[in-house]
Amino acid sequence: LLVNTFKWAVLGTAVGILAGLGVRLYLYILNHAIGFGHALDRFGIPHFWLLPLILPLCVLLAHITTRQKAHDDLESQEGTDAVIEAIHTRSGRLDPFAIPVRLFLSILTLFGGGSVGKEGPAAQIGALFSSLLSDLLRLSDEDRRRLVICGVSAGFAAVFGTPISGALFGVEVLYLGRLEYPVLFPCIVAGIVGHLACGASPPVPVLVPGNGHAHQLSQPMLVLLSLLSGVFFGLVAMLLIETMRFLDQQLRRFASHPFWVAVFGGTALAVLYQLAGSGYADLSEPLIRSALEGTARIMLLAFLVKIIATSLSLKTGGAGGIVTPLFFIGSTAGAAMAQILHLPVPLFARFGFVAVLAAAANTPIAASVMALELLGGHFGVEAALCACTAFLIVGHRSVFSSQYLGYSKA
Amino acid sequence: LLVNTFKWAVLGTAVGILAGLGVRLYLYILNHAIGFGHALDRFGIPHFWLLPLILPLCVLLAHITTRQKAHDDLESQEGTDAVIEAIHTRSGRLDPFAIPVRLFLSILTLFGGGSVGKEGPAAQIGALFSSLLSDLLRLSDEDRRRLVICGVSAGFAAVFGTPISGALFGVEVLYLGRLEYPVLFPCIVAGIVGHLACGASPPVPVLVPGNGHAHQLSQPMLVLLSLLSGVFFGLVAMLLIETMRFLDQQLRRFASHPFWVAVFGGTALAVLYQLAGSGYADLSEPLIRSALEGTARIMLLAFLVKIIATSLSLKTGGAGGIVTPLFFIGSTAGAAMAQILHLPVPLFARFGFVAVLAAAANTPIAASVMALELLGGHFGVEAALCACTAFLIVGHRSVFSSQYLGYSKA
Repeated sequence: LLVNTFKWAVLGTAVGILAGLGVRLYLYILNHAIGFGHALDRFGIPHFWLLPLILPLCVLLAHITTRQKAHDDLESQEGTDAVIEAIHTRSGRLDPFAIPVRLFLSILTLFGGGSVGKEGPAAQIGALFSSLLSDLLRLSDEDRRRLVICGVSAGFAAVFGTPISGALFGVEVLYLGRLEYPVLFPCIVAGIVGHLACGASPPVPVLVPGNGHAHQLSQPMLVLLSLLSGVFFGLVAMLLIETMRFLDQQLRRFASHPFWVAVFGGTALAVLYQLAGSGYADLSEPLIRSALEGTARIMLLAFLVKIIATSLSLKTGGAGGIVTPLFFIGSTAGAAMAQILHLPVPLFARFGFVAVLAAAANTPIAASVMALELLGGHFGVEAALCACTAFLIVGHRSVFSSQYLGYSKA
Repeated sequence: LLVNTFKWAVLGTAVGILAGLGVRLYLYILNHAIGFGHALDRFGIPHFWLLPLILPLCVLLAHITTRQKAHDDLESQEGTDAVIEAIHTRSGRLDPFAIPVRLFLSILTLFGGGSVGKEGPAAQIGALFSSLLSDLLRLSDEDRRRLVICGVSAGFAAVFGTPISGALFGVEVLYLGRLEYPVLFPCIVAGIVGHLACGASPPVPVLVPGNGHAHQLSQPMLVLLSLLSGVFFGLVAMLLIETMRFLDQQLRRFASHPFWVAVFGGTALAVLYQLAGSGYADLSEPLIRSALEGTARIMLLAFLVKIIATSLSLKTGGAGGIVTPLFFIGSTAGAAMAQILHLPVPLFARFGFVAVLAAAANTPIAASVMALELLGGHFGVEAALCACTAFLIVGHRSVFSSQYLGYSKA
């Protein structure tokens, strides 16, 4: 076991370094691409009007490079989902040419303002490097599978800036209600190293207790509120999942015309942004931050707009992840709830942040640990309770269709 | 699912209140009993010389009340183990008369200075109340089993003072390498409520970063050290498990004379305390605290003394838990290692604290979460890595013989 531990510590470190540096490069390019997109706004027409062109281009490129039926590509454009599927069905074997194309597509989607996340591509980078490393070391299928899980964990840890919960997310997201213990150790090694190599900071500063945000609430009241808000966040997550499923079913009958679907999706998105504001486009990080800080008064239905934008982006041809949109939806839903009920906004925005993640991705443990990483021991406890409640509410639904059912919830 | 969530929230709250108040009362009595024991020292002879009388008394009382073969009682005197077994084999059905006796025995053992823990009895209190509540509500066997797990979680959360990791410990300790997701939610409810109802504070204050303890270490160095120390803590946990097993085998041939075994054990313990110091007796909380604070220079082999004392106490008739001794062994081993290598003592004592728990009880997730609860986001990350390493090192060994093997580690 000592040899085994040593072997996996070394492998985890190697994957962590590769994935961390890869994600770092990816984030660098991505930031410039998004900045370039915003720079185009100076020419009078907002850059998101490029979407009706960009989404069909994504579909076309995906079609050329993967040589599959076009609609199949549409279905697996969500980065994390594609990786989960590869781990479950092909021992993590990935097409080394398809991934760079997908990364390029996700950058293109975000450049145009598609509402997708940056962590799906990060997971793909981690998976790609670990798959290549497995080829190089001629690992067995079982070892390859584990190493790819490590790569995914490292990718998440690097891009979220939260080493432990990022790594746990990579392990927990594979199954609904099951955790694979044997990969825990190398994944945490890979997560920590990946986080260090990437150097990204956590999405939000840790909320220090005692800055007056929640002092008016007694502890039992806080527990009750976290239970009730957990139910609310669970319903929000359910709404997202059902919206995506509904859109998927409606678009299925146009499956033979993927380009027109993409043109329609891009146009609809552009109209939506024109009406609701360009803050909902791309990663929407300024809005997430202001929701968490409670500085801006956010439109109460912001989370609904984002749900529609994300469903459209992912289902009509855009490439990218879904977790960053989840963060947006959760934190704005929490902020809206807190505004209506006159509760401390930063606290409940954070509750929503982790609870919607827990519910939509079925990762209560990773979300609870993230709550502790982001909130500290004080409010992290209640946030974890809120996340577990939300997780229970969504039942066996999931935003990741390739997630396996490991254990029944009821 | 909404109804189900509500039902379990209410049940979890009820169990949390009952278990929390029960543990509060138990801790109150226990503190007075230990204080009374220490007060007896004024009469010249240290109170731990009562052990050669107390341990046979424990065996006798256990024998009378349970009417089983005496040696069988000896085996299941570890409180947590007894509860795990009841959950696995009898849907958590417990003998409502045996538990109060066991609680009394654990208080007696700790009064005399036996080296056992207070969390085993706390788990039994939680299990007892939840079992009685199940009888009252006429729950089905499956629901009863879940409710008893909640009770155990609430007991741990209350007695440790760490709601989330206490609750997770109750869920994770049932299996080696598996986590039962369906009970997660009610257990966390019960844990938080139990913690509030009991009002016990965490065993150690959260280590605030920036108080200069670890600033001389670079991050990569810290990661490497947490890996290496994880191996060390894993070996320490292995030594404890093997010592207990060895003692068990040696004493098995005297199984027909349990009273003489108890007399021998009590005498050996008293001699050990006379030689090594009475700080190793009962809960040893002052020594744990000084190891964690790095204030006292602790004997380098303190953890070895405690391993022998704990094995003797539990295997020759004493009743109680094993986790408090694990905290002692882990924190002193960490402090000793840090002293030899000139590393920050408070930091590595905390690493040992969580890592030995993770390894000996096979609860890496609960220990990692405890690391985050006790250390905060900054060093908690490395402590979690250390805990996972140690967990891996011990293989399929465990201090809890009734733990089921859920998943192979290798």
